[in-house]
This record gives sequence, C-alpha cells and structure tokens, in this order.
Amino acid sequence: MFQINENYLQLGESYLFSTIARKVDQFSAAHPGADIIRLGIGDVTLPLSPAVIEALHRSVDEMGVKESFRGYGPEQGYLFLREAIAGTDFQKRGIDIAPDEIFVSDGSKSDTGNIGDILGEGNVVAITDPVYPVYLDTTLMRIGKTNKIRLLRCSDENGFLPEIPDERVDIVYLCYPNNPTGTVMTREELKKWVMWALEQKSLILFDAAYEAFISDETIPRSIYEIDGANRCAIEFRSFSKNAGFTGLRCSYTVVPQELKGTTANGKEVSLHHLWNRRQSTKFNGTAYIVQRAAEAVYSPQGQQEMREMVGYYMHNAQLIRDGLIEKGWTLFGGENAPYIWLKCPGDMDSWTFFDRLLAECHVVGTPGVGFGSAGEGYFRLTAFNSYEKTVEAIERIKKWEY
Amino acid sequence: MFQINENYLQLGESYLFSTIARKVDQFSAAHPGADIIRLGIGDVTLPLSPAVIEALHRSVDEMGVKESFRGYGPEQGYLFLREAIAGTDFQKRGIDIAPDEIFVSDGSKSDTGNIGDILGEGNVVAITDPVYPVYLDTTLMRIGKTNKIRLLRCSDENGFLPEIPDERVDIVYLCYPNNPTGTVMTREELKKWVMWALEQKSLILFDAAYEAFISDETIPRSIYEIDGANRCAIEFRSFSKNAGFTGLRCSYTVVPQELKGTTANGKEVSLHHLWNRRQSTKFNGTAYIVQRAAEAVYSPQGQQEMREMVGYYMHNAQLIRDGLIEKGWTLFGGENAPYIWLKCPGDMDSWTFFDRLLAECHVVGTPGVGFGSAGEGYFRLTAFNSYEKTVEAIERIKKWEY
Repeated sequence: MFQINENYLQLGESYLFSTIARKVDQFSAAHPGADIIRLGIGDVTLPLSPAVIEALHRSVDEMGVKESFRGYGPEQGYLFLREAIAGTDFQKRGIDIAPDEIFVSDGSKSDTGNIGDILGEGNVVAITDPVYPVYLDTTLMRIGKTNKIRLLRCSDENGFLPEIPDERVDIVYLCYPNNPTGTVMTREELKKWVMWALEQKSLILFDAAYEAFISDETIPRSIYEIDGANRCAIEFRSFSKNAGFTGLRCSYTVVPQELKGTTANGKEVSLHHLWNRRQSTKFNGTAYIVQRAAEAVYSPQGQQEMREMVGYYMHNAQLIRDGLIEKGWTLFGGENAPYIWLKCPGDMDSWTFFDRLLAECHVVGTPGVGFGSAGEGYFRLTAFNSYEKTVEAIERIKKWEY
Repeated sequence: MFQINENYLQLGESYLFSTIARKVDQFSAAHPGADIIRLGIGDVTLPLSPAVIEALHRSVDEMGVKESFRGYGPEQGYLFLREAIAGTDFQKRGIDIAPDEIFVSDGSKSDTGNIGDILGEGNVVAITDPVYPVYLDTTLMRIGKTNKIRLLRCSDENGFLPEIPDERVDIVYLCYPNNPTGTVMTREELKKWVMWALEQKSLILFDAAYEAFISDETIPRSIYEIDGANRCAIEFRSFSKNAGFTGLRCSYTVVPQELKGTTANGKEVSLHHLWNRRQSTKFNGTAYIVQRAAEAVYSPQGQQEMREMVGYYMHNAQLIRDGLIEKGWTLFGGENAPYIWLKCPGDMDSWTFFDRLLAECHVVGTPGVGFGSAGEGYFRLTAFNSYEKTVEAIERIKKWEY
C-alpha cells in the first residue's frame, strides 16, 4: 500500500487570492455598475517589448528549418544567455560571477521551491514574516511542521526588516527588494547578514526578483556586491517583472563555485555540483526561443525597453506613494520596489480595510495578513496596473472619508 | 552550519553520454576523414512542423500587444490545451479522462522526477533494469540507497518485459513503449499490472512518452485503456518525440480524480489534490506560446504533420530492423518504438561492441550497460537520424565482418 508525503497535509490551503476573487465577484454581482480597479495584482500588464518579440519571431523561424532547428539544449541554459547575464548583470557592475555559475530556469518560483532538494532535512530554516508564501510552503512540504522553522517577525518597529537571529539558524530566505513590503536592504544591512552567514556557516537564499526596480544607487542589486557572499549565498533572479516574462517563463539562479555545504560528518561539498546534478536530472532546460527572448533583454535596445517598462511601473508606484502620504497614511516601499505596504488607517485590520476599500472606493488590494500573521493591520498595493487606472484609484482613495 | 542532502553523494556520476562523447572525439581526432554517423541520439532531428510554427508566430504577436498580452497563466495549463488533450488523446479513444485531470508541464523529465515530492519516503519502489536513468536517480535523491529500491531485471528470457514482483512493492515505474529496449506491453500484460496494483494498493507511474510510435492497434496507448487504472496509475506524456518539442518543452501528466494514496494511519488522500498543490506552489505554468504550439498539434493539420514526422522516424526504424535481421542479429523493439535494442553479436560486451562499431563502421550507438547492469551485452540504436544517414549506417553494418 503506497503512502503519500504527509507533510502536504500540514499546509494551509492558499485561500488568500481565492478569497479575494470571491469577495470581488460577490461585490460585482451586487453592484453591476461599479468600476473596480485592481491594485492587488502581482502580475505585469505591459506587453513584451519589441526587441523581445523580434527575437522570438526570429528564433521561431530557426526552429522551423532543419538546418537551424534545436532539440534538447543544455539543462543549465545556453552559453549565449549565460554569458549575456554574467556580463551585464554582474561583471559590468564589478561583480565576479562567471557564466558557469548561472543556471537558467523557467521561473524563480520553481527554483526557490526546488532548491530544497539539495539541502538536508536537519537544517533550521528561517523565514521572514510577512513573506512570499512559496518559501514557507515548500519548506513545509519538505520537512513538515517541526521546531526547525523560525519566523523572523518584521514590523514597523524594525522598518519591516528582519533582525539577525540570536539562535541557531542554518538557512535563511531573504527577498530584497521585498515582496510584499517593498522594503530594501542597505549595503550595511546586507553586509551584516553576509558576515553572520559566514560566521555561522549558514546559507542565505537571496531572492532578487525585483532588483530592476532599485533606483537608489547605494542599494545593492545583488548579494554578491558584498564580499564573501559567494561563499554563503545563492541568488535567484527573474525576467518576470523587469521584462514582463510572467507568461513566457524565464529566470536564473546563481550558485557560485566557491559555495560549499557540509555532510553530517563535516565533509565539504560543492553546492554548484549538487544543483547541477539536480537540474541535469530533473529538468531539461528552458525553451530555446525563450532563452533567445531573454538574451534580447540584454541588447542595447532591450535594456532601454526594460528601463522604460520599469519606469512606467515605478511612476505608478510614485503616484500611489504621493497620494497616500498626502492622506497622512504610514507606508513602506514603493521607492525601489513595485509594492507599497501601508498601515491600515484607523487601526482597521487587514480584511476590514480590504472590505471597506472595495465597498467604498471600488479598489482591490491584498490584505497584509495573507502574507503571515505579522502582516495583520497592513495592506499591499502594487504598481502593475495601468497609469490611468492607478491615477483613478488614488483619486478615489484621496476623496475617501473612512 | 547548514547541511546538504547526502543522498546526492550516493548517485553514480552520469558518465554514459560524456564517455561516449569523449570516445567519439578521440576517434575523430585520430581519423579526421571518418564520416561518423550517430545512431545513439535520443533527440529528434526534424524541425517543428508548419502548424506549430504558425501557432508560435501568432501567439508571439499576441504577446506584443497590450490587449492580448498574457502574464501568469494557470499553473495547471490553459483550458484550451487541456481540453484539446482530453478530447483527442483520451475521449476520442473512449477513455474517460477529463481536462481537469491533466496537468500541463515543461517536460516529462521534470514530472517523472518531481512526482516523488508528493510520495512518502517509506514506500518500496520498483524500477526495471535496464531503465531510463531519471527514475532511479530521482528516487535515490529522495530516499537514498536503502533496501526500499527493487530492480526488476529484464532479459531476453522475458522478452525484456518485467515480471510482476512477488514481494511487497508500493510504487513501480513502467515505461511503454520502452526506452531503451523499444519493447511494448500488450493489453493482456498491462492488465496484469493494473490488477496487481489495485490488489496491492500500489501506484504505477506510467511513462507513455513514446505512445505516438505505436502502430499496432492492439497495443494500449494509454494505461487508462485498462479498467481500474484511474485508481492506481499516473501517466506521463510528452510532445518531445511525436511533435519534435525537445527544444520547445511541453508535456503533460494525468492524475485522475479517483486516484487515492494513504497516510500511515490508512486515511485516504487524493493524489490529484496533492499534485495540484505541488504544481501551484513550485511551478508557474508552461509558457503561453508553447501551450498554443501544443494546441496546434491537435488541429487536423497538426495531427497530419505529427503522423508524418513519426512515420519518417519509424521508416528509419524499419530500415534498421530489416538490416540487422538480415545480418542474423537478435533484436527487440523498433516496431512500435523509435528504439532498437540488439544483442551484441559474438558475445561482445556493450562497450567492446561500441568501440568496434565506432572504429570499423564509424557508427555511434549507446551501450546497453549504460542503462543498468541487465543491459550488459546489449546495445541501443535510435531512429532519430535522417533517412540518408540511417541508410548509410545500415549499409556499413551490413558489410561489416566482425
């Protein structure tokens, strides 16, 4: 009689977005004329840029001709893309990351989820609260609800930045610019984490999916800007938000050659080697045409288009920030991230604020408590809707007497 | 101090294809004039068909326009594709599989590897020998080298078909048409396995990646042709070989609603529910444009092109079979599968045969022992090279005096 992985039964059902959808549907049905504006979405809305579309058409044509057709590619990604990534995202910024330290994949969700495959089950894992739910859920799937999971509570007192753990932690997930809070880590702050990890021989899983939204030159865009991070950190990057690839699926993960884990006996083992084995065995590479599309993001035209796309969303973020500050609300993020994290006014809890914002402004956002209990009393708005809709939503909120 | 998953250290390095590459390189260097023909490849060589190319161009155009752009899609795949699959691959053949039982993915390698995520670690797992290495390696990654892995030895005595285990087995991987042996299971034979699984409450992981190569109408193309299989089997299908998607990446996995596993306490749990949770949490769906390409395979034009592509390769398989039979060699497969599995003549072992075939015929194949110790003394040839190269290779083998 075969058995299931019972850790799955310990997972909370992910009711957040289905609850939101149900509430919005009910409200729409009761108020058919209401023009509902969604500032809750984490998905992009601008189409793929011309350089990307052109690369796709060109590579699709290659795939239709015997002489240029490509079958299985390298599981780690084509060298043309790994070189473009290493060159532009790292070496041009003075960061020493080589093409063979980059693993191209189909999404950061896959990679941040699958990275657990190569890690032992005895590790103590720390996760911030509030958090992008994938880190917690995939950890639970792997090791179950044990005393090995630590929540690093974030609050307005610590500026929604976690504090260095004062007890044993082997692995920590950090995401900066942060989803959902939109906060960033200064170089100083990030350095503290790298120092701590090197000292404790802990591993930092650093999700930098939103690095393109950083405008402040002093904020690190990669953890490898910090000396020694190549001995204690894996970094996840994505083309989803900077180049609008949410429907095209491409990301990459950096596993430096110098990064070592240990066996129970203390023997050192290369994580690069293990991740390479994992990817070669359980993955067959990202579509060739998608890798050509990602390569186009690194062309001069592609880089320009990416900046414009990010600029469009960040202009929305600015609009939201300005409007809410004018309103006197307390908020985080939105300066170097497409997320605005606000304290619900009048001491409302997250769902009360959601209900009232929907009913009275016809604006949809995401209750902070959906990202963890430390998010209670907070609310996430995103910059991914159109300029026009964002202006209209903020006008309504500005006029709102709650 | 963080620790690694030590099961990875128990994996054999996958030297097979790198050893082959090295030997071929060495031979080429020593014999620069030699026209080496590769009949070892498991990758397709024909380009994508016109219907697929057209669907790609059309959907790429959609992605470049705000109104038709698509971001995140459903993790399970778009309904248009799941309906096309359920309709053509199952319902038209009288098999009761619904669209919501189909999970679209980026490759069977991913899915046959990741399926272990939802299964308990205490299960006894059976794997045929010889075998596609992914089943064994991903099982080792998950549970390590324990007494819970059983090898089902196949040999010419049992026609390279495994026998029903006479000891406890909770999970069995079956792949038919088989890679590497090219053998198929009759309805009678497959029925025995389904009966056994239902009786033992065991799970069959059925890899049907090569079903399109079946020409014999009496051979089942899906395990769900057998009554009761929806209560004991998961089926993996791929667009890689039938439609040439090895570089485009699309596959699907069928997890029937009625399939249940149990907890240690004997409580029944839906595997469909668990796999859905796994995919929603650790995967973000296959690229929209790739799903449109897969949908095009189900159009009348796409189906015709697929039949022609498969026919081309199967004509090669026939050529190889005829040539080797004329030579008096013992062989399996090649009738309902793109693989020909031959007994090395003159009692040569697999690598001796490889070396001599390369040196004396300038033809490359795959040593059977590379797929497991029961493959020793056997050799795999594939039908995926061009017609012209295949003819030439067989002519050389026919003239060969070994």
